[in-house]
Amino acid sequence: MKAVVVEKPGGPEELKIREVPIPTPGEGELLVRVKAGAINRTDILARKGGGSAYKKATNRLGVEMAGVVEEVGKQAGAWQAGDKVMGLVSGGYAEYVVIPADRAMRIPDNLSYIEAAAIPEVFLTAYQTLYWIGKLQEGETVLIHAGASGVGTAAIQLAKQVSKANVIVTAGSAEKLAYCKELGADHVIDYKRAAFEQEVERITDGKGANLILDFIGAAYWKKNIQSASMDGRLVLIGTLGGKETNVDLSDLMGKRLQVTGTLLTPRSDAYKAELSQELAQKILPLFESGVIKPIIDTVFPLEEIHLAHRRMEANENIGKIIFRVGEQA
Amino acid sequence: MKAVVVEKPGGPEELKIREVPIPTPGEGELLVRVKAGAINRTDILARKGGGSAYKKATNRLGVEMAGVVEEVGKQAGAWQAGDKVMGLVSGGYAEYVVIPADRAMRIPDNLSYIEAAAIPEVFLTAYQTLYWIGKLQEGETVLIHAGASGVGTAAIQLAKQVSKANVIVTAGSAEKLAYCKELGADHVIDYKRAAFEQEVERITDGKGANLILDFIGAAYWKKNIQSASMDGRLVLIGTLGGKETNVDLSDLMGKRLQVTGTLLTPRSDAYKAELSQELAQKILPLFESGVIKPIIDTVFPLEEIHLAHRRMEANENIGKIIFRVGEQA
Repeated sequence: MKAVVVEKPGGPEELKIREVPIPTPGEGELLVRVKAGAINRTDILARKGGGSAYKKATNRLGVEMAGVVEEVGKQAGAWQAGDKVMGLVSGGYAEYVVIPADRAMRIPDNLSYIEAAAIPEVFLTAYQTLYWIGKLQEGETVLIHAGASGVGTAAIQLAKQVSKANVIVTAGSAEKLAYCKELGADHVIDYKRAAFEQEVERITDGKGANLILDFIGAAYWKKNIQSASMDGRLVLIGTLGGKETNVDLSDLMGKRLQVTGTLLTPRSDAYKAELSQELAQKILPLFESGVIKPIIDTVFPLEEIHLAHRRMEANENIGKIIFRVGEQA
Repeated sequence: MKAVVVEKPGGPEELKIREVPIPTPGEGELLVRVKAGAINRTDILARKGGGSAYKKATNRLGVEMAGVVEEVGKQAGAWQAGDKVMGLVSGGYAEYVVIPADRAMRIPDNLSYIEAAAIPEVFLTAYQTLYWIGKLQEGETVLIHAGASGVGTAAIQLAKQVSKANVIVTAGSAEKLAYCKELGADHVIDYKRAAFEQEVERITDGKGANLILDFIGAAYWKKNIQSASMDGRLVLIGTLGGKETNVDLSDLMGKRLQVTGTLLTPRSDAYKAELSQELAQKILPLFESGVIKPIIDTVFPLEEIHLAHRRMEANENIGKIIFRVGEQA
């Protein structure tokens, strides 16, 4: 089968299509013929050979996909060949991939493979950070940075549709802000034109945001602390704006803040299974009814996946960048 | 009545005994004749006029006491004059004080007022940080800094007796370490002689501590991060070793750490009531059966409370520094 292989760390040009053996599904696993998948920042880090958490994935990339069950391993539950599934995998930039059956999610009938491929990583991450870690309560105020990103667009919809939250979003262009508003954001802030911490203070009458989802890290630290409410929670899922920052720990005590760092990809199989099952049960029905939708930015054929990486690295996307395998998906 | 008043911020010599009116219990309050109380670091900060969180308390000090109900306000539940109570108050360095009835805790029969006065602040803080915030699970490893302090001695006992935790403690003298061991600590580290982060690594076979209770802040930040396990929790309840530190946010993500700052004194009345009721229900029976005990360092008469402050500021105490009101308590 064809698969994308990174033979040495580097730029998008290092993404090579190679012929590799089709994997064999082990006990509790499904072999899936991949119809579509999506690009994630963890793939870019892996391609560059970065982050100890990502090392395992440096030769083969791709953490999510949608496709058709080709073969069912032993003790893999009620799945059957022909079932349409999506979920978190390892080595998903390929024609075939195995997935543990207990984390495979059935694709809602109204969604294409391309739409389904836009769901797992970002909706699982948004769900995990908003609910498992961030403990978002109905009606609370949540500040979502990088609102037009994959996780951002998922988080806006979940916070609004599931929790009736007061959703404040930052993004870096008028087009992105307008799109966030369309998705349900109550307030949008162009971080290039306004100091978001002042806007949050104004919008919340000085109370601050109960929950902050941040991908930026160091560059936003002080402003996030200023934007947080008393007993606020800050969930850190990226450090695009740097890792090292000076911190005044008495700020954490004065506001009784909780700061949690998290990553989804390096989590255990058991964790991913439990999270996927909860998402399937609680959130997939909202995709079926159309209340929540996957957000597709662009679709590239697998052979042009280097262009997909370039687009993500240029921060040009609104929603997910998808690759398709074969002519249609 | 006599009360300790701070007329201007400063050293222990600014603690003056003055004649002030006996307070009147309002709706839902009890008037208590104070028999004993305890010194806390928040009192020292308040005496110095520090911390915006403490400003309200700068004229009158004392956040906990044990005594006898003198008068019961309207709608103050089933309390009666003559009941022996302890709990969190404001202005407890005095002959009388009012306490909201819903946070008053009945003193177990086997305890003196002096022993009872050693319970509220430190056991409520230890309980809150270990369980409400730190989510300590049975058998986990907990690292407790300043193990011989009031909160430290309370936390060692709770972690060991309630949660069968693997308890690692740091302290700064052989005497303090021996005492922590007597209270149930499994491992003790003299932070003046050993790098605690290396000891924790050795003791836990490289796994690290699931939960860290820290009062030190900046000076321990890097070492605490090194000492934490994957998915570890760090609860910050003091910054005795400085507030400002350089933080590498990718450490928080790599280990998926949760850092929470907390303070008890500035919390709402409702929070204090709920916490006190839970402690009374779940932990006070363990005092009655002698499984857990209040730890008394020294007892000073109210008139010599400046000496009590000096002792705490010198970090000489093991357990609580108590003041008594009148001849015996």
